[in-house]
Amino acid sequence: MHPIKTLNLGLIQMRCGEDPSANLSKALAMTRQAAGQGADIVCLPELFRSRYFCQTEEHRFFALAEPVPGLSTEAFSALAKELEIVVIVSLFERRAPGLYHNTAAVIDADRGILGIYRKMHIPDDPRYSEKFYFTPGDLGFLAFRTSRCHLGVLVCWDQWYPEAARLTALRGAEILFYPTAIGWHPEEKEAYGVQQHQAWEISQRAHAIANGCYVAAVNRTGFEPTPGASSGHGIDFWGQSFACAPNGAVLARAPVAEETILVTPIDLGQAEQARIHWPFLRDRRIDAYGDLSRRFIDS
Amino acid sequence: MHPIKTLNLGLIQMRCGEDPSANLSKALAMTRQAAGQGADIVCLPELFRSRYFCQTEEHRFFALAEPVPGLSTEAFSALAKELEIVVIVSLFERRAPGLYHNTAAVIDADRGILGIYRKMHIPDDPRYSEKFYFTPGDLGFLAFRTSRCHLGVLVCWDQWYPEAARLTALRGAEILFYPTAIGWHPEEKEAYGVQQHQAWEISQRAHAIANGCYVAAVNRTGFEPTPGASSGHGIDFWGQSFACAPNGAVLARAPVAEETILVTPIDLGQAEQARIHWPFLRDRRIDAYGDLSRRFIDS
Repeated sequence: MHPIKTLNLGLIQMRCGEDPSANLSKALAMTRQAAGQGADIVCLPELFRSRYFCQTEEHRFFALAEPVPGLSTEAFSALAKELEIVVIVSLFERRAPGLYHNTAAVIDADRGILGIYRKMHIPDDPRYSEKFYFTPGDLGFLAFRTSRCHLGVLVCWDQWYPEAARLTALRGAEILFYPTAIGWHPEEKEAYGVQQHQAWEISQRAHAIANGCYVAAVNRTGFEPTPGASSGHGIDFWGQSFACAPNGAVLARAPVAEETILVTPIDLGQAEQARIHWPFLRDRRIDAYGDLSRRFIDS
Repeated sequence: MHPIKTLNLGLIQMRCGEDPSANLSKALAMTRQAAGQGADIVCLPELFRSRYFCQTEEHRFFALAEPVPGLSTEAFSALAKELEIVVIVSLFERRAPGLYHNTAAVIDADRGILGIYRKMHIPDDPRYSEKFYFTPGDLGFLAFRTSRCHLGVLVCWDQWYPEAARLTALRGAEILFYPTAIGWHPEEKEAYGVQQHQAWEISQRAHAIANGCYVAAVNRTGFEPTPGASSGHGIDFWGQSFACAPNGAVLARAPVAEETILVTPIDLGQAEQARIHWPFLRDRRIDAYGDLSRRFIDS
């Protein structure tokens, strides 16, 4: 009844070093390798061109930003065309002097940049000082009709917000991609590490279930020291990139500490099947959701 | 910094028989037992006064409905007063001739019925023909300021909707209670049973995480045959009532098939602590959530 429509997702879990051009070369090489293993849609981790510079607030790091189109999107547009794949490229966008975003470009085989998503929810937590660098996105929640499927991109902190997943799914996305840079504070890992990782994975699996869509989270891996801090201070990125099905089942999960090319077949027919069997969209009480636009309902 | 404020939740996982007054007596006895074990807030499973009659569409079952206040709420008001506890009582509400709801009453020690919640999301799936019986709730999503804490009640199908959990939390609920009646179709259990249960639990743990609050799901247990159907046809209610912390960790979980009084200590200070460490409410993009009130964003 529901025709099988198989696609291969390619999740690139990588370690990011000091040198942006070396990171770009590695990302291009791993993407080529993923395509060689059959990947139709490749997603890179958040801000893979550099170390995760948001650990500290330093004006010099704005030099890492690049325009769109620019070096990264041009390199990946050429590769996507050659390999006939879709690529999701996270980057530090320089939109105008004084206006910078945490952006993901969706690049489609022959068509180049289909569009961009600018991270809507911006964190500010110890070692994640993103509000210093990134202006909150002003494009809203989007889905992109690529040659392979209808997909949405959300970025890292967005993954904690059911509103973001819902709005992207309501725009027709069959897969939600989450380029990510998340890890442990080494000094907290023993006490809180397992719970932190589980909460992260559970939240995203719940988005898949609530919305009847696939979810792919693509994280970086490796330890990155905090610039100027004492030895051992930094972020231990927890890897564990994964893809899950519309019923929340984890289809594939990368290890914590290794660079991994995770190629995972999915069947888009399953997403419609899931929505017919678990008809959550049918019964939403849209007449009663207006207060979701309030900060708190204290009056 | 955050004063410890300990409470004991009492989750009553029960088997429901043919006789409404026997079910009521058992529910009262189990509530008394829970209070004896220290429970401050007791929650009963969905529609515990009868078999889950929504397996079939039969006009005779409307005779099971009762007004609020009525027999059930009066019995529990007396008991709550005697035991100095809060009780959440799910029932089939007869509001007016031709208007029936799937309702939960919140009863507070000395104050009787504090308020009611009428189930907002109404399912209609094979063996869950609730749209035939229940008018969708018209009171919206609510929180109740009881003598013990600020709590919200949502009912069964509501548990699949992140909007419901969010709106209840935005009204100040520190705990979300989900009286529930969910189980397996025996003929599907082998193929889908584990995934179905996991999706159910994950969705609710994700509500706790996204909203920084406790969640308690209270299910019935036991096999109930479909009236008039061949032997073995029915619902195998899967029990596994559970409470989880604001970080999503499961604090206690009942078994599948046994009646269980699950008394679980929680610390309300942890909910504020969780929200400070995971400040999701701070960063919600309320300027961009308006389309959550749309059915689908196809134009």
